[in-house]
Amino acid sequence: MHEEFMNLAIEQARTGLSEGGVPVGAALVADGSVLGVGRNRRVQWGSVIRHGETDCLENAGRLPPPVYRRSTLYTTLSPCHLCAGAVLLYRIPRVVIGEHRTFEATEDLLARNGVDVRVLDDAECAGLMREFIERFPGVWDEDVGAGDG
Amino acid sequence: MHEEFMNLAIEQARTGLSEGGVPVGAALVADGSVLGVGRNRRVQWGSVIRHGETDCLENAGRLPPPVYRRSTLYTTLSPCHLCAGAVLLYRIPRVVIGEHRTFEATEDLLARNGVDVRVLDDAECAGLMREFIERFPGVWDEDVGAGDG
Repeated sequence: MHEEFMNLAIEQARTGLSEGGVPVGAALVADGSVLGVGRNRRVQWGSVIRHGETDCLENAGRLPPPVYRRSTLYTTLSPCHLCAGAVLLYRIPRVVIGEHRTFEATEDLLARNGVDVRVLDDAECAGLMREFIERFPGVWDEDVGAGDG
Repeated sequence: MHEEFMNLAIEQARTGLSEGGVPVGAALVADGSVLGVGRNRRVQWGSVIRHGETDCLENAGRLPPPVYRRSTLYTTLSPCHLCAGAVLLYRIPRVVIGEHRTFEATEDLLARNGVDVRVLDDAECAGLMREFIERFPGVWDEDVGAGDG
């Protein structure tokens, strides 16, 4: 089941890379249904707040608070502080992460706040990120607020 | 100086309330210049990620990472987890808050991460929020992931 939903997130990440964008994708699932998918839009739309996870939540639209509280967020990459903040704001209880080899910042914060965090260590997720970081290191730094720009 | 920039954020919050929206506004300032202003757009645009602070960052657009690191974020209301996450992601070193009487969730988190947090305890900021929460309690709950929807 994790695999089926993670594949939707990976499809988003792949599309992102094909657009020249940061290859992070996400899917929000509740009660066995996909409520939304999304991908990082920094390059495509010049967005500084549409990461994979936040774009996914925006695409899912306004939901009654209890729906978030029984949902799972699938994301190809370990969440940054912005996206972890969205998880905590909406009290999303479970986050399934494709990989955390290329970036990891908030898994402790999420766990301390009671979020169930699982890491699949998926080779394709890591491969997409490695390719992007190698080709566009400046954009990746910008996306995580790092570097001297 | 704080007052001048906070007034821009308050103007955004006032406009938000006049639109029937959550009255939270923000302004991003660096090197004495205003880089962007914004307001919560949940009601106006059906957005779940455009809070006052994140809308402000989005309006400021893509910035070199060092610019964030010498900036100050003015916000009429104490940041939720999403907006605090944006501050941590971009390593914004200072947050000036209009009021935290009607909502407070992340000031400890920000301070623990080295962010300089100041609270002005502004009566108009609190008044705008009290009016909104009284008129639209369900929308306010939705905006902070609370309540039974």
